[in-house]
Amino acid sequence: MKRRDFLTKAGAGAALGATLAGSAGTAAAQAQPVRWRMATMWPKSLDAMHGSAETFGRRVGEITEGRFNISVTAAGEIVPPPQVFDAVQNGTIECGHVLSTFFFGKNPAIGFDAGMPFGLNARQQAAWMYHGGGLQALREVFGKFGIVQFPVGNVGVQMGGWYRKEINSVADLQGLKFRIGGIGGAILAKLGAVPQQIPPGEIYTSLEKGLIDGAEWIGPYDDEKLGFHKVAKFYYTPGWWEGSAQVTLLVNQKAWDALPAPYKSAVECAAGEQYMRMMAEYDAKHPNALKRLVAGGAQLRQFPKPVLDACYKATQQVLGEFAAKSPEFKKIYEPWQRFRDDQNLWFRVAEHALDSYRYSVK
Amino acid sequence: MKRRDFLTKAGAGAALGATLAGSAGTAAAQAQPVRWRMATMWPKSLDAMHGSAETFGRRVGEITEGRFNISVTAAGEIVPPPQVFDAVQNGTIECGHVLSTFFFGKNPAIGFDAGMPFGLNARQQAAWMYHGGGLQALREVFGKFGIVQFPVGNVGVQMGGWYRKEINSVADLQGLKFRIGGIGGAILAKLGAVPQQIPPGEIYTSLEKGLIDGAEWIGPYDDEKLGFHKVAKFYYTPGWWEGSAQVTLLVNQKAWDALPAPYKSAVECAAGEQYMRMMAEYDAKHPNALKRLVAGGAQLRQFPKPVLDACYKATQQVLGEFAAKSPEFKKIYEPWQRFRDDQNLWFRVAEHALDSYRYSVK
Repeated sequence: MKRRDFLTKAGAGAALGATLAGSAGTAAAQAQPVRWRMATMWPKSLDAMHGSAETFGRRVGEITEGRFNISVTAAGEIVPPPQVFDAVQNGTIECGHVLSTFFFGKNPAIGFDAGMPFGLNARQQAAWMYHGGGLQALREVFGKFGIVQFPVGNVGVQMGGWYRKEINSVADLQGLKFRIGGIGGAILAKLGAVPQQIPPGEIYTSLEKGLIDGAEWIGPYDDEKLGFHKVAKFYYTPGWWEGSAQVTLLVNQKAWDALPAPYKSAVECAAGEQYMRMMAEYDAKHPNALKRLVAGGAQLRQFPKPVLDACYKATQQVLGEFAAKSPEFKKIYEPWQRFRDDQNLWFRVAEHALDSYRYSVK
Repeated sequence: MKRRDFLTKAGAGAALGATLAGSAGTAAAQAQPVRWRMATMWPKSLDAMHGSAETFGRRVGEITEGRFNISVTAAGEIVPPPQVFDAVQNGTIECGHVLSTFFFGKNPAIGFDAGMPFGLNARQQAAWMYHGGGLQALREVFGKFGIVQFPVGNVGVQMGGWYRKEINSVADLQGLKFRIGGIGGAILAKLGAVPQQIPPGEIYTSLEKGLIDGAEWIGPYDDEKLGFHKVAKFYYTPGWWEGSAQVTLLVNQKAWDALPAPYKSAVECAAGEQYMRMMAEYDAKHPNALKRLVAGGAQLRQFPKPVLDACYKATQQVLGEFAAKSPEFKKIYEPWQRFRDDQNLWFRVAEHALDSYRYSVK
């Protein structure tokens, strides 16, 4: 039936919620039940992160009338966090819920998925993913691993981490044993720091035992749960290495290809919803957590400008090196830079102008 | 089956995309077909806005296997834009896609849905809606009209509009006939301007004929399509009256109540997805539109600080008046202010700190 026909025939007084029999979707066309397993990299205590994965799975179940069931498991229940990528790749599980920055060693181009140091902010990242060519460009990168990826969350700019001693100059980074995931670590190494890759569940103990001098995770809400303020009191901002930390749904390519079309659409839709909702939850919960941390003894500090300048310079150097050695990185890097510059131009004109005024009054 | 049972029985080598028969969702449980009509307030030429409504409808159709069909119609096809609210309320149509700011005259508390002058930015608005009590608070307001509302998009901070003459001082607002929707108009009136409510399709002609001295719509991408730069060359920023312009899906309460649970979930999910995707599309498309407008003769201007200060002061006055006369407004206003202040505190610490640095380099 053409839309025009429908409009004419149904007329303006059409019954509310009219139930029509015999339309396109009949019981015969119903897609068959499917069951998937998802491993997240997060302990259940990180309820904004792991909780978002659970809400995603529940939503897919609801909208498919219980026929597409995604069983969501927390860190280590069926797959240890560092192995989630491989488990999806080899089909041990159908999907994973990850910060892909942990896997940038497989190809530095993966860094564009998680978010680049001094890169796009969360809104700019969404713009790049959905309307700037990002999703398609990254599909090629992940495709080489037999994986189809979907943005499924974002935590925004991270905090700059917890330190036992103040960072007053670039020299203070020398020899600093700092827990950090992803590309940020490679950049800090250029400045003499010694990056440590430690899963979230083990950071506190490493810090308490003095095995490391500092650690970053996400921001106030999760950091408070992990208790870092009890073992390292200087809390720095901003987390320049992740101006936007995008969270990613990794799906095994064969599992994806085998999925009925309505379920594919359900995955895309529910992932898109969580992309917005996770960010909203973190934004809503960070302020009070920050207040509690400061009340509990955390000392808030901003990285001095010379430190940020040195980090910015080292970032350009590291990204240049990646571009020189990874064709996949190079292919994305140049258009990404243009997109970023355009975004920054536009955000300066409107969003930043109003935000700056709003933050300056009262 | 309990999750633990499943994990044990299925084992780690479970087949990819396993198709299981006889699970919870069988053909017998399938929800019956439903057909809805949606009226948007937008001409089809505003493809980011009207297009988002169409994508929403298509998505709901996909994930319900074509059984829940939402027929999306553009401005005036079945309902004139200013009557969409009433048409949803009285059940002529099941749902509408609107900027609720056009309807704040029904109750000023509706302003919290569209976004308040000098209020929350887009991310803060989402945080308030989903995790700050906003959605529930506004459900009470819309509920009195027999309407259930869902956030279904956001366009971010708007531009400050197009003017035939420069705005150099507060005195320049005196007698200014300015097309503006919503609460911003009430505030400008305090400063001597004469706000005009004109639907988007008629703004250009009014400006061309000199019936008005200026007009605001959204931002570069839509403004370019509407051609305002040809008839008023001074393009001001920021659009302080809408720091976040949230777009709303209005649903007739009875139609909603009659909807099968999986379709309700599909509406919520697809609306959440569009909340993020519409913002991403505008963010991606504004920069090049802005460049073209400037190349085409638009003169970019920032409102002078004394003008912003006067507008800010008038805003507090108008919102105070609303609180004095509308109990619904007052009930939301106080907790909303606390939420806003907390959000601004947090955004200053992290997002704004990094954005400011990023925008300052190179």
